[in-house]
Amino acid sequence: MTDPQAGVLLTDLYELTMLQAYYDRGMNDLAVFEFFSRKLPRERSFLMAAGLEQVIDYLSGLRFTFEDIKYLESTGRFSAAFLKSLEDLSFTGDVYAMPEGTLFFRDEPILRVVAPLREAQLVESRIVNLLHFQTVVASKAARCVLAAPETLLIDFGMRRAHGAEAGLLSARASYIAGFSGTATVLAGMRFGIPVFGTMAHSFVQAHESEAQAFENFARSHPANATLLIDTYDTVEAARKVVALAVQLEKEGIAIKGVRIDSGDLGQYARQVRHVLDEGGMRGITIFASSGLDEYALRDLMAAGAPIDGFGVGTRMNTSADAPFLDCAYKLVEYAGRPKRKRSEGKATWPGRKQVFRRFDAEGRIAGDALTVEGDAQEGVPLIEPVMVAGERLKPSPTVAALRNRAREQLASLPERLRAIERSESLTPAVSEHLHALAAQADAETERAG
Amino acid sequence: MTDPQAGVLLTDLYELTMLQAYYDRGMNDLAVFEFFSRKLPRERSFLMAAGLEQVIDYLSGLRFTFEDIKYLESTGRFSAAFLKSLEDLSFTGDVYAMPEGTLFFRDEPILRVVAPLREAQLVESRIVNLLHFQTVVASKAARCVLAAPETLLIDFGMRRAHGAEAGLLSARASYIAGFSGTATVLAGMRFGIPVFGTMAHSFVQAHESEAQAFENFARSHPANATLLIDTYDTVEAARKVVALAVQLEKEGIAIKGVRIDSGDLGQYARQVRHVLDEGGMRGITIFASSGLDEYALRDLMAAGAPIDGFGVGTRMNTSADAPFLDCAYKLVEYAGRPKRKRSEGKATWPGRKQVFRRFDAEGRIAGDALTVEGDAQEGVPLIEPVMVAGERLKPSPTVAALRNRAREQLASLPERLRAIERSESLTPAVSEHLHALAAQADAETERAG
Repeated sequence: MTDPQAGVLLTDLYELTMLQAYYDRGMNDLAVFEFFSRKLPRERSFLMAAGLEQVIDYLSGLRFTFEDIKYLESTGRFSAAFLKSLEDLSFTGDVYAMPEGTLFFRDEPILRVVAPLREAQLVESRIVNLLHFQTVVASKAARCVLAAPETLLIDFGMRRAHGAEAGLLSARASYIAGFSGTATVLAGMRFGIPVFGTMAHSFVQAHESEAQAFENFARSHPANATLLIDTYDTVEAARKVVALAVQLEKEGIAIKGVRIDSGDLGQYARQVRHVLDEGGMRGITIFASSGLDEYALRDLMAAGAPIDGFGVGTRMNTSADAPFLDCAYKLVEYAGRPKRKRSEGKATWPGRKQVFRRFDAEGRIAGDALTVEGDAQEGVPLIEPVMVAGERLKPSPTVAALRNRAREQLASLPERLRAIERSESLTPAVSEHLHALAAQADAETERAG
Repeated sequence: MTDPQAGVLLTDLYELTMLQAYYDRGMNDLAVFEFFSRKLPRERSFLMAAGLEQVIDYLSGLRFTFEDIKYLESTGRFSAAFLKSLEDLSFTGDVYAMPEGTLFFRDEPILRVVAPLREAQLVESRIVNLLHFQTVVASKAARCVLAAPETLLIDFGMRRAHGAEAGLLSARASYIAGFSGTATVLAGMRFGIPVFGTMAHSFVQAHESEAQAFENFARSHPANATLLIDTYDTVEAARKVVALAVQLEKEGIAIKGVRIDSGDLGQYARQVRHVLDEGGMRGITIFASSGLDEYALRDLMAAGAPIDGFGVGTRMNTSADAPFLDCAYKLVEYAGRPKRKRSEGKATWPGRKQVFRRFDAEGRIAGDALTVEGDAQEGVPLIEPVMVAGERLKPSPTVAALRNRAREQLASLPERLRAIERSESLTPAVSEHLHALAAQADAETERAG
C-alpha cells in the first residue's frame, strides 16, 4: 500500500554501517526500540497516531534483493561475509503499538519493536518515515475536524503534498482523522476512501463561454455536477447557474453544487447563497476551497458562512504550521538491560513502556500515566501487541474502522485540549517504577564509564 | 526513478470528470498549460527549478492499466465509451522547460505543456506534485549552500521527509542545489549521489561502554569511521576518541571524524577541537547535526565554529519555514486562442511565454523580462524544448551536470538576492507584447460573456 519499489535501501547508510560492526562482533541480542515524540510542536495540544498499517506491511516484506546487495558491495564499505548475511535477513521480531487513530502526548511511545539487534536497528529510518508523516497529517486533519465538526471536509492537497507517497498517505491519514473523502483517485482505489471531484478553471476557460462550460459539465454529470464559479465574476456566475438549473430541471438534470475558490469565501458564499435561494435553488450546495486550514475553517464557521463543505488542501497535506515532529525511535533495552540516552535536551525514558489513560465521568481524558510494561496503573492500557515473531496478529483494519476509533478518541478530548490556539497539552505522570528503571540504567552507564 | 506504482490514477478526480465532459463534446484541440509560481514565499528571494526529469519520466510512461479502468468503472461516474477511450491514451505532446537548477522568480513559467486538451489536462496533478516538491527542496537547500559555501553539507532528513518519494527526491534536489551527498542509500543507488553515514546513539548504548563502541566501529570501518560523541558527555567522549586514535594508529587504523548531535554545537565544537588538537589529532574532523537549517548554518559560520561538515535534515527536507509554494499549472491557450484566469488575487498571464535574463558586467542577474514566445528581448532565453510529440529530446542529464548548472546559477545571484533574511525578490518586467495579449484574452472573454 506504499511504494513497493522503495524497499530495504530506503534507509540511512548508518543503519548498515552499524550492522556491519554488529556483524563483526557477533552482536545480535534482543533489542527493544520505541517510537515517541519528545515534545509536541507549539501549535499542537495532542497528536493522533497513524501509519502503523504501513509499518506492518513494510516489516512483513523486509528483504534484500540481489540488486540491493550488489549496490552495497559497490560502495566498498561492507565485507563479503556481512553482505552474504543480508541475503537471509527478514523481520522476525514482535511489535506493540497504539492502534491508529489513538490520541497521544509527549514521551508516550506509539510503537515498540522487540527483535534481534540488527533487524530492530535496520528498520529505524523507514519506520520513522512512515509513522512520522501520517501522524503529522492525522494530527493536523483532526484539528480541521474539531474546527468544523459535522461538516464535509475533503482532502484536496495531493498536488502540493511532498511527492507521491505523501499525496496517497495524506488522503488516508486525513480520512482516518475524520475527513469525508479525498480528491486523490489512487487513494480511493487502494484504500476504499470515497473520492470527490469538481472541475478546474481550465475547464471554464477552454469553452467559448462560462455558461456553455457549466451546461456541458452538468450534462456529462447529470447527478453529480459541482460547478466552479470564480473564474471570472463569482456572483454573476451564480446567476448563470440558476438560469441553467431552471432549464435543466425540465430535462431531469439537477446541479448538485457550486464551488468558490478565491476571494473572501465567507462573503462570496453569502452572496451566492442569496442568488441561489432567490432563484429557487435552495438544494444547490456551496463548496469552498483555497488555502484552507483549521484556522480559516474556525473563522468561517464562527462567521456562520453558508458553506456546506470544504476542500482542504496544501496546508493540511504539508501540515504547514508544524510540518515535522520532534520524534525518535530509541533503544530502550538491549540484552535484557534498560538503556537510555542522556544527550543534552534529548534525554529519554528507558525500558519497555505502557501508557494508561484515565477518564472522567463524562468519558473525557483525565490523565495519562507512563510506566514500565507489567506495572498496572489505573486506567486503560493503550499499547497492544500487533506482530509476533514477524507475523501480523490480526487482519488489517479498514480505514472506516480506524476512522470510527479516531472519532471516539476525539470525543474524549477535554475542552482545554480542543482549542485551535494551543493553550496547553498533557504531560503523562511518570510512575515510580519508571523512575527507578531510569536510575538503574544511569547507574549501569556510570559503572561502565 | 519515482514510485512506478503511483501511475496515472495518482491524480485528482476532477481531471477525469473534466475529461469525461471533453469526451462527450469531442473537445480535444491543442491546449497549452504553464507551471509557475504566482508569488514567492515571504522567506524566499529566489526559487530553484527542479523535478523536470521526473516529469519527463512520468509523461513518457503515461498509460491506463486494465485495473485503473476497472476502478474508474466501479465509481459509476464515467461512460463506457469514455473509459474505452482511455485504453489508448498516452502523452503525445511537446514540453518546454527551464533546465533543472535554473533560478526563477514570480510569474516565470518553468514548464510548458502543449498537447491535445485531454492529455494536457490529465497530467496536471502529478506534474504539480513533482515540480512543486523538488523546487521547494532545491530552493531551501540552495539557501543552505549560500549560508555555508564550500562546506560539506549532507542530506540527513529522509526519516522525517513526507514519505518515501519525498525522502528519495529531497536527496536528489538537495544534491543538485549543491549538497555534497545524502545519508539515503536508495538515492545513492538510483541517482548515483554520494552516500554518507556515521552511527546512531543506539550503537553506543548497545555496547557495555562508549569506549568499546568507538573501538568496535573503528575496527569495522578502518578508513571511514565517524564516531558519535554526544550520547553521554561530549567532551569526555572526545578524550576517549583521542585515546583510541593513539592506540589504533599503531595498527594503521585512522579515525576519520566525530559527530556532535545535541547541545550548543558551536561551543561543543570548540571544546572538542581543543581536545582533539591537544591530543595530536588535528586530522580528525568535526561533523555536526541536530535541527540545522540555513539560519543555524549562517550563525555557526559567522561564529567561526570549527565544524568541517553538517548533516542537514528535517528542516531542509520539509522546507520547514516555507513548506509549500503558491504555484499553479494554468491553461494559457486553447485552440489557438490566448486564455487567462481573472479570479480575485489569482489573475495570470495568457499565452506561450519566454523568459529572458540580462546579466551585468560581473555576470550577476540584472533583470528578467517576461514576454510571449517569439518576441526576442535582450538577454538569454531560459525556456527550451525538452519533449517533442511525446518523445524526450535529449538523454537524461546526470545529477552531477545539473549540480554544476545550479552552482553557476547561484554564482549569478546579485548580493541583494543572496541574503538569508529576505529583503527583496525580483519581479520580471512584462513586455508590451504580453500586455497586448492579456488585453486580447480579456476582450474575447468579455465578448463571450
